[in-house]
Amino acid sequence: MPELRKDPIISRWVIIATERGRRPVDFKKSKLEEEPIKAGICALCPENESMTPPEVAAYREPGTGPDTPGWWTRVVPNKFPALKEEGDLNRTGLGVYDMMNGIGIHEVIIETAKHDGIIPRLSDKEIEEMLWMYRDRYLAHATDSRIKYILIFKNHGSAAGASLEHPHSQLIATPVIPKRVMEELEGAQTYYRFRERCVFCDIIRQELSSRDRIILENDSFISIQPFASRFPFETWILPKKHMSSYSEIDRKEIMDLARILRTTVSKIYHALGDPPFNYIIHTAPITNECKRFYHWHMEIMPRLTKVAGFEWGTGMYINPTVPEQAAESLRDTVVEDG
Amino acid sequence: MPELRKDPIISRWVIIATERGRRPVDFKKSKLEEEPIKAGICALCPENESMTPPEVAAYREPGTGPDTPGWWTRVVPNKFPALKEEGDLNRTGLGVYDMMNGIGIHEVIIETAKHDGIIPRLSDKEIEEMLWMYRDRYLAHATDSRIKYILIFKNHGSAAGASLEHPHSQLIATPVIPKRVMEELEGAQTYYRFRERCVFCDIIRQELSSRDRIILENDSFISIQPFASRFPFETWILPKKHMSSYSEIDRKEIMDLARILRTTVSKIYHALGDPPFNYIIHTAPITNECKRFYHWHMEIMPRLTKVAGFEWGTGMYINPTVPEQAAESLRDTVVEDG
Repeated sequence: MPELRKDPIISRWVIIATERGRRPVDFKKSKLEEEPIKAGICALCPENESMTPPEVAAYREPGTGPDTPGWWTRVVPNKFPALKEEGDLNRTGLGVYDMMNGIGIHEVIIETAKHDGIIPRLSDKEIEEMLWMYRDRYLAHATDSRIKYILIFKNHGSAAGASLEHPHSQLIATPVIPKRVMEELEGAQTYYRFRERCVFCDIIRQELSSRDRIILENDSFISIQPFASRFPFETWILPKKHMSSYSEIDRKEIMDLARILRTTVSKIYHALGDPPFNYIIHTAPITNECKRFYHWHMEIMPRLTKVAGFEWGTGMYINPTVPEQAAESLRDTVVEDG
Repeated sequence: MPELRKDPIISRWVIIATERGRRPVDFKKSKLEEEPIKAGICALCPENESMTPPEVAAYREPGTGPDTPGWWTRVVPNKFPALKEEGDLNRTGLGVYDMMNGIGIHEVIIETAKHDGIIPRLSDKEIEEMLWMYRDRYLAHATDSRIKYILIFKNHGSAAGASLEHPHSQLIATPVIPKRVMEELEGAQTYYRFRERCVFCDIIRQELSSRDRIILENDSFISIQPFASRFPFETWILPKKHMSSYSEIDRKEIMDLARILRTTVSKIYHALGDPPFNYIIHTAPITNECKRFYHWHMEIMPRLTKVAGFEWGTGMYINPTVPEQAAESLRDTVVEDG
């Protein structure tokens, strides 16, 4: 059983994956730089459904059965889950330390049946399906009383942590509210107490007025380079309407999100030459006691620079690209319609 | 002039290095995975002193002049500084945002004249010199009223962000207290208010009693795998005596720190096959209003796993190596005396 352990100084939880138990020899064999993306038969492609754990959800042709071809978006449990679904939390202390069992959910969302179906090659309609599946899986786990937070994220490219090439996202549900989310909640709440406005709504208003950092805008969303961008070409997508949870998204908003996500990622793809990237959806914790002051959003992080001692030591970042210049480059990058 | 910009949600400062101004084409040329450590003539080797900015400090043979050979530890300004030394902070607001000029210090501490003098190949005595230089440079900048914090850190290996092979550390002094340091200060203060004890002292007491996570111990220091370790083989070195600032270190403690640092890093080197790593010194801010509750320490982070979407989205980490097993492996790794 994996363990969740809490740092007694800064209250950060970590997952100790006890069952993987990687020892020195495992790291000697595979140095960080040398880990390639697995080639050969793809476990996430149609016809190979037996190579994954049994599916927990799929959008598929009528008449086709589970774990057979005919699907276009499919969800399976992670074969090597960071957290285990079965069991009790069993929260306990150990002197100055706190820990609990590593209970949670870890799923792989296969975004498309197409092995080479990266976002710039998909249609808006195909991306809508992926976004609906994000919402479905969120709602499927939101009723589990042990779960406090659900993170949906994507790793693209080996340097961004992807170990499979076939386009996929992941969902990890945790029995604690993660540190970074707590920081955003606390910061947004402090701002709300002071100004009685949502800090994200104020950011959106200011960005729409100055337009220096805007990449794209449609009826429901904007994509921007954040003012205090950590990484070159870091990009956020925010709903223009105040909404605390991704699970509240409606049909029109899914269509608009698919469009802005595809076009934004395509611009990054063409401007930077298919860089490795991560994206994450920051949404309210399941209890959603932050409806007034929290505002869900996506953060897209191209992995173009290295995180080193300064960043680990300070939590600060050195960004060699000015956000306003990055926004201009991306605005000027032409991409096809989806 | 670089800019310091503050994230309005979580109050994290970032450095926007406006003068580097890297545009898309710069990233297309050098993908993250392909950046090699520069080969050829080494700017940090003796005889090549003219390739660096003029030295600001050196331990050298009597009778040798600045920027000539004869030194064994030498400090130069960073040729491409993240922050600029000259100027005023000029703190200002921009609607919802805060910013100031990127004022600060960025120095390179050349640890040894030996190009291949990585820590496992140096003597305890040579490492003592490096540690004295850390203290000297800290004290040299601690009187600058614009500076609030001084971080000393080291990147070893390309994957850990080192762009030069010659062993060197860096010092970055910032006009703000960095986020991560603030978190440690706040966490330690909360603990102190509750228990009237230093949380680090309590950790040391518990680790010395259980010994599960101890690697080494001498008169003044212990090296341990932290209980809530983020990374495989993450290692901390802590002074056993309560001390808030590295600048308070005395002669006997420098000797003991040199010994435990050399032996600990050598164990990591041999157990894991010279992995890339970062280390940082976490010390009190310059004003040191935290003498009772903060406790300086070193954090060594071998870079064996990738940080991906989950970590960026949550601030949590998935560690595939159990700290107690890592401690056992390192205890069992035999290294030579220095």
